[in-house]
Amino acid sequence: MNKTVNSEKQNTAPALGQKKRLVRARTHMPSGRTGARAVPAAGVRVGRRAPDPGKLKFIPLGGLGEIGKNMYAIEYGDDIVVIDSGLMFPDEEMLGIDYVIPDISYLEENRSKVRAILITHGHEDHIGALPFVLAKLDVPVYSARLTLGMIEAKLAEAMPRYKPRLIEVAAGEKIRLGVFSVTFISVCHSIPDALGIAVETPLGIVLHTGDFKFDPTPVDNHVTDYAAFAELGRRGVLLLVSDSTNAEREGFTKSEKSLIGAIDNLLRTYRSRRIIISAFASNLHRVQLVLDAAARFNRKVVFAGRSMVNNVELAIRLGYLSADPETIVPLAEMDGYPESRLVIMTTGSQGEPFSGLVLMSKGAHHRVKLNSKDVVALFANPIPGNEKLVSNTINRLFELGCEVLYGREAGLHVSGHASREELKMLLSMVRPKYFVPVHGEYRMQIRHSQLAEEVGVPAKNIFIMGNGDVLTITSHTADVKTKVQAGAVLVDGMALGEKEGSILKERQELSENGVLVVSATLDKKGKLVGEPYFESYGQIHFRDAEGMRQEFSEAVRRALKHDPNADSELLKKQISLRCKELLRKYLHSASAVIPIITRLS
Amino acid sequence: MNKTVNSEKQNTAPALGQKKRLVRARTHMPSGRTGARAVPAAGVRVGRRAPDPGKLKFIPLGGLGEIGKNMYAIEYGDDIVVIDSGLMFPDEEMLGIDYVIPDISYLEENRSKVRAILITHGHEDHIGALPFVLAKLDVPVYSARLTLGMIEAKLAEAMPRYKPRLIEVAAGEKIRLGVFSVTFISVCHSIPDALGIAVETPLGIVLHTGDFKFDPTPVDNHVTDYAAFAELGRRGVLLLVSDSTNAEREGFTKSEKSLIGAIDNLLRTYRSRRIIISAFASNLHRVQLVLDAAARFNRKVVFAGRSMVNNVELAIRLGYLSADPETIVPLAEMDGYPESRLVIMTTGSQGEPFSGLVLMSKGAHHRVKLNSKDVVALFANPIPGNEKLVSNTINRLFELGCEVLYGREAGLHVSGHASREELKMLLSMVRPKYFVPVHGEYRMQIRHSQLAEEVGVPAKNIFIMGNGDVLTITSHTADVKTKVQAGAVLVDGMALGEKEGSILKERQELSENGVLVVSATLDKKGKLVGEPYFESYGQIHFRDAEGMRQEFSEAVRRALKHDPNADSELLKKQISLRCKELLRKYLHSASAVIPIITRLS
Repeated sequence: MNKTVNSEKQNTAPALGQKKRLVRARTHMPSGRTGARAVPAAGVRVGRRAPDPGKLKFIPLGGLGEIGKNMYAIEYGDDIVVIDSGLMFPDEEMLGIDYVIPDISYLEENRSKVRAILITHGHEDHIGALPFVLAKLDVPVYSARLTLGMIEAKLAEAMPRYKPRLIEVAAGEKIRLGVFSVTFISVCHSIPDALGIAVETPLGIVLHTGDFKFDPTPVDNHVTDYAAFAELGRRGVLLLVSDSTNAEREGFTKSEKSLIGAIDNLLRTYRSRRIIISAFASNLHRVQLVLDAAARFNRKVVFAGRSMVNNVELAIRLGYLSADPETIVPLAEMDGYPESRLVIMTTGSQGEPFSGLVLMSKGAHHRVKLNSKDVVALFANPIPGNEKLVSNTINRLFELGCEVLYGREAGLHVSGHASREELKMLLSMVRPKYFVPVHGEYRMQIRHSQLAEEVGVPAKNIFIMGNGDVLTITSHTADVKTKVQAGAVLVDGMALGEKEGSILKERQELSENGVLVVSATLDKKGKLVGEPYFESYGQIHFRDAEGMRQEFSEAVRRALKHDPNADSELLKKQISLRCKELLRKYLHSASAVIPIITRLS
Repeated sequence: MNKTVNSEKQNTAPALGQKKRLVRARTHMPSGRTGARAVPAAGVRVGRRAPDPGKLKFIPLGGLGEIGKNMYAIEYGDDIVVIDSGLMFPDEEMLGIDYVIPDISYLEENRSKVRAILITHGHEDHIGALPFVLAKLDVPVYSARLTLGMIEAKLAEAMPRYKPRLIEVAAGEKIRLGVFSVTFISVCHSIPDALGIAVETPLGIVLHTGDFKFDPTPVDNHVTDYAAFAELGRRGVLLLVSDSTNAEREGFTKSEKSLIGAIDNLLRTYRSRRIIISAFASNLHRVQLVLDAAARFNRKVVFAGRSMVNNVELAIRLGYLSADPETIVPLAEMDGYPESRLVIMTTGSQGEPFSGLVLMSKGAHHRVKLNSKDVVALFANPIPGNEKLVSNTINRLFELGCEVLYGREAGLHVSGHASREELKMLLSMVRPKYFVPVHGEYRMQIRHSQLAEEVGVPAKNIFIMGNGDVLTITSHTADVKTKVQAGAVLVDGMALGEKEGSILKERQELSENGVLVVSATLDKKGKLVGEPYFESYGQIHFRDAEGMRQEFSEAVRRALKHDPNADSELLKKQISLRCKELLRKYLHSASAVIPIITRLS
């Protein structure tokens, strides 16, 4: 495969940015010796055989069948580039797990090929796994300025001694990584500096949209670069990889600026009261809207909540927020201003346990004590799974007597992801040969694929992939027939890589019925000495139930009689079986039993 | 207080149904010797002092600050009537708990006063606690026919030897219970036979709406009895107790019949395919709509899912469903019909683990195997907290290739509860003196109370109550100053009444980090014999980490050296402390440790 690296020069796929080479379609089907259907493409000197263009692989390592832990590998010959390294927050059944990251075994096995990690934007589901990934793969990380600022802060905390190679790129910039030419494209999202990524390969262009929407009036005036997408479409895109988050949502996603009215209305209606606004800490567009509105209404803005404060500091330092320095007041100096002149902007819109708003709602915030004169507005809808946490937070705010604005009907949130009409528009702009919907649960992938079909992508060219699936593309074929190791690595303190899930199953069992420890001491002949000892935890306590203790003692005695010559492991199994049976009778379900045998010598 | 029972005859509150006595307002303020402001009411012979009318108490034992476990006591003198006995499904943090019921200590203490339990309708949050309540309070239960049918089935399963006294009442009927006259009022809800309840007391009328909406075109043609509510309002209602579930939702709740179009559309669009409809098993109105549509489209209806089948059987037997017997086909005979002639109606719209649709989505249903030719429609929105379960179910249906119709945008669900405009309409019809919003979380209670104020109920006459609060009403005052024992009783197999929550705290601990069992054997002098033995469950296993084992052995050794004369409990504490410290180092959080000490004698 080595020679395909050099063969790239003869390849028909034009370099990005060379707008003058008007090669229409089929740029991804260079001439070749591989089949009768091969067609000499424009730009190839006819009469000379092009070398085998080799195979291109697109391998999602996370982000398919789920919203979270995005990670996509693009491989050609000896080169791999990785797009994003995200984490996911655990499901309820992942007891005790802090977060989930992608299994990168495949990248570790191909360590020498990995040229770089390219990051689309600074959300946790795109950067959160970087500390774990970089610890294993010390490669350069490319992204835009703000995103790198967030990554730098994250790495400094997680691995202070590691010296990352962070390389700043800007939208429109082109870099070379092994056989690939990579161009970055400006897209709108709910965080500034979001990028789409076009990877030019010897077989054609792979275009990853990143998380995006078509906001015609973005807060920072950086519209999604329609022209770049259209130009790529004109030249021919081999594979489009696109954000499926809102593939179920009809119509167009509203502009972030559509919230200006809601914020103004809030500040106008509650002119004489302190206002607390909760939003995602990374949504610096929304922070900018609040800063602007506060200035108009002659209010000061106070930031609270660690990630909000950190992100705002970073954004100001890097020039992503513009505000009269007079407008922002530190939390500690808040008391110097009348309440009617303050807006407190804080975290906790998802009801996260130690976030600003949640602490305030519990009366546990060290500075902000809410009361019935305060107005609280939640400028975010609950992410699926967070509904109860958010609902509990709102109830507590009502109990404090606050006026609370919340919920879909209040219209205080717009999504950062493209809805169905936008997705169709992108598809029809790009008109890719192959299409893979990513960044979504299974049903979203399917509904996104249906949109692609509507727009004219043949069903056979659309791939509903899972994590670890390998889409292999040659000059005239594409299929998903092979698979690499991939999946979820659960992070729980130090304990990494619990792939079998046995620990989680045990925790599930413990969480439902607690545990019973049974200790028996045996003499040299294997006979029970004294009484068995019981200790229960997370279940009805034996000390409260003498009758039960006798019944269980009898069960242990019978288990030990079973075979006096049996070894301890066998006896433990017997004890466990008989005690579980009895527990089922009492608790109506199975319960964990840990038998301990002490043998006197 | 005894005499107040007889004093009722002189009371000014006219009996329900006696429409000719046109006593307007103040019927709840009879003349009395209790204060200067007492006004002789119409219908009282002036010149004769009425005896002290005594105190009326309204005591919610469940259902306030929550949606679930509804239970309300109305007390006057020696008489108590209880409205509803519901259960609630546990929160995520209630590990291993099956359900939650109200604490009825207050009723047990006043057992001799409890005349009856009146049930508004057959939903679990209104009848689910009956087996527990009746086991402690053997009182008669009054409700409508269908509700009693459901209660009978529930009791037969939970307490087969108990002979309940179930007394059927119909809307419009009036019964006498101690000092109270009780009238039942027909209301619309998402289950047939729902009732509002008017309790006439010596001080005036207490009106409980039950769960209701104003559906002008209900499926069974039993509209909410506006006339009865209006007539009560005309006569004067002392206390209104009303459903707050949708107090956040603007406008009017749609009629159940508005789903006819959606069902017809479904059957028309997918004329040639098998259709699976999932809905709440108790929503027999929706079952009727499906039966009617199936008949129109010449389809057979097959019911699947235990509670769906049971409810349908009961409803047919009692006359609450009307269908040509030919229309319904048993599950076992389904295969005799072409797929395009079948509608399968099943449970699982909330993603409940062992429900019909969930089993089908997992390929685990014994009869129904879904495939890519099937169309599945979820005729219910997820209840808050169930979003993830529903989402996972939908993803699995997509994976099977089914066409799936779901989500708010699909318009396949209408609520059973009145929205804000209806709540205001009811309030303005009834014009109560006092108002208590019930059946809702705190913010819903508040928003409902704001509606009452808009309609003209003075703020001082509105009470935001919690479970156990006692609203005490006299002839000229009303206040909430006292409290009775109330709260949540957690049901987990046999284990009832875990009020301290210590077991749940232990389970929480176990669920997060598992447990480490440490066993040490001591000789007569208190010296360690051999090595300590470790067994872990739900955490990193010691057998995989020899270095860790040595470190922990050392910790146990140090703990035992601490004081060789110490008793076992003290030594256990020392072992636990030191091992927890080490575990914190490894797991970055606290973990349960169970020390076992065996002493050789």
